[in-house]
Amino acid sequence: MTSLLHLDSSANCSVESVSRALTALFADTWRARHGSTGYRYRDLVADPVPPLTTAYCALGRRLERHDLAPPTSVAELVETPAEQGEWAVTHPLITEVLTAGTILIGAPMYNYSVSASLKAWIDRVSFPGAFTDPHTRENLLCDTQVVVISARGGIYSAGSPREAWDFQTPYLRVYLAKQGVAQENMHFITAELTLADVAPHLAPFQSQAAHSLATARAQVIELAVMQVTETVMPNRWKTATVGFAGRGS
Amino acid sequence: MTSLLHLDSSANCSVESVSRALTALFADTWRARHGSTGYRYRDLVADPVPPLTTAYCALGRRLERHDLAPPTSVAELVETPAEQGEWAVTHPLITEVLTAGTILIGAPMYNYSVSASLKAWIDRVSFPGAFTDPHTRENLLCDTQVVVISARGGIYSAGSPREAWDFQTPYLRVYLAKQGVAQENMHFITAELTLADVAPHLAPFQSQAAHSLATARAQVIELAVMQVTETVMPNRWKTATVGFAGRGS
Repeated sequence: MTSLLHLDSSANCSVESVSRALTALFADTWRARHGSTGYRYRDLVADPVPPLTTAYCALGRRLERHDLAPPTSVAELVETPAEQGEWAVTHPLITEVLTAGTILIGAPMYNYSVSASLKAWIDRVSFPGAFTDPHTRENLLCDTQVVVISARGGIYSAGSPREAWDFQTPYLRVYLAKQGVAQENMHFITAELTLADVAPHLAPFQSQAAHSLATARAQVIELAVMQVTETVMPNRWKTATVGFAGRGS
Repeated sequence: MTSLLHLDSSANCSVESVSRALTALFADTWRARHGSTGYRYRDLVADPVPPLTTAYCALGRRLERHDLAPPTSVAELVETPAEQGEWAVTHPLITEVLTAGTILIGAPMYNYSVSASLKAWIDRVSFPGAFTDPHTRENLLCDTQVVVISARGGIYSAGSPREAWDFQTPYLRVYLAKQGVAQENMHFITAELTLADVAPHLAPFQSQAAHSLATARAQVIELAVMQVTETVMPNRWKTATVGFAGRGS
């Protein structure tokens, strides 16, 4: 079934949040075509993923010692009530990822990286072996589309003076690739200079900020429509890649 | 006063945690010379920093609009009880940073970056203007020593095939520099291959892992003794820098 897992991670839950506005635009466009049956929303701020515990680490290490095991077998390796509790929190989150045709991630830049809320989700779902077939070692996310909508206060795009300070989108690209997401299935859309209307020293960049936001909105709609069309068939049958990967705002 | 703020962020609170063992070794060495008066410990897992909220963002944006303000004036800009609550949580954490001569950070690599627990601390203490003198724009952390003790399951050091996947120590170096910490006051000690005794595919690297840990332990003791000697005088009067910056295990 065509499905969309929509994650937001901006601590700002007001209408001021640019990443939340853009992910909502994507989701609205997607649902206008597909309806809400395959749509799932998770607000990582309103409903935060619990921090990892020693029991989570102990269970994860046991998986590593067993050279990984399928998620459905993890329950058999649980040894304590605390580990049982950790797995009860973690397994549904992993299942959400595995069953999503497209994962939409709202990822504002906080202190040059992803927000702590998004990192808490990353740390928990990245359980040893979660996205790998234990028998074939095949990536279970090879057909998953991931749309990252990022927002940042300044300019950090490729070629800018602050490019080297961007530990947000390059990080997510590496992280997603290591989980098995194909490069051609990653789509990054970025709105920059979101603080231009707030910080006095960024006031000269307000028109550039408006242009960045308008461009991001157009890309979001175009990508959402394209996703609606393309997710009808599995990626392995696709001949063309979506053209947004790597493009800044 | 000579002082040490000790932070741990490994979700594994058992004796298995390498980063916790190494930060404890540093702290023990430091306290053996200085006593415990200037020592402060914060466990970011046992006592997690609360996630940011919309009220935190609203107060932060107001600071940005006012072109920053000294931390002591922030309370005057608070407009709601929620913002008051956010500042009541945040201000003591900022004060801890500003009053520490040395900040010791236990930073395990989780999914190629810092742990969500450490990121939650970073996101909260990095309040607009917190570490900048509002009148002179001088960095308030220019004399602060920061010791980062990192641990990671594999090999990500400079020159290794996985160097480009390291969004942990290069990230902290950029983040700390942007907060005003001088490059010569940053000290990184890293234990690698901490999963060699756990994951079967890393078993061939067990002796290399033991060497990495032994080297890290020696560096921790040497640096702690050096810190004990050097923190007697402010950094601006120092002529030599500590030689561990940037060196892997």
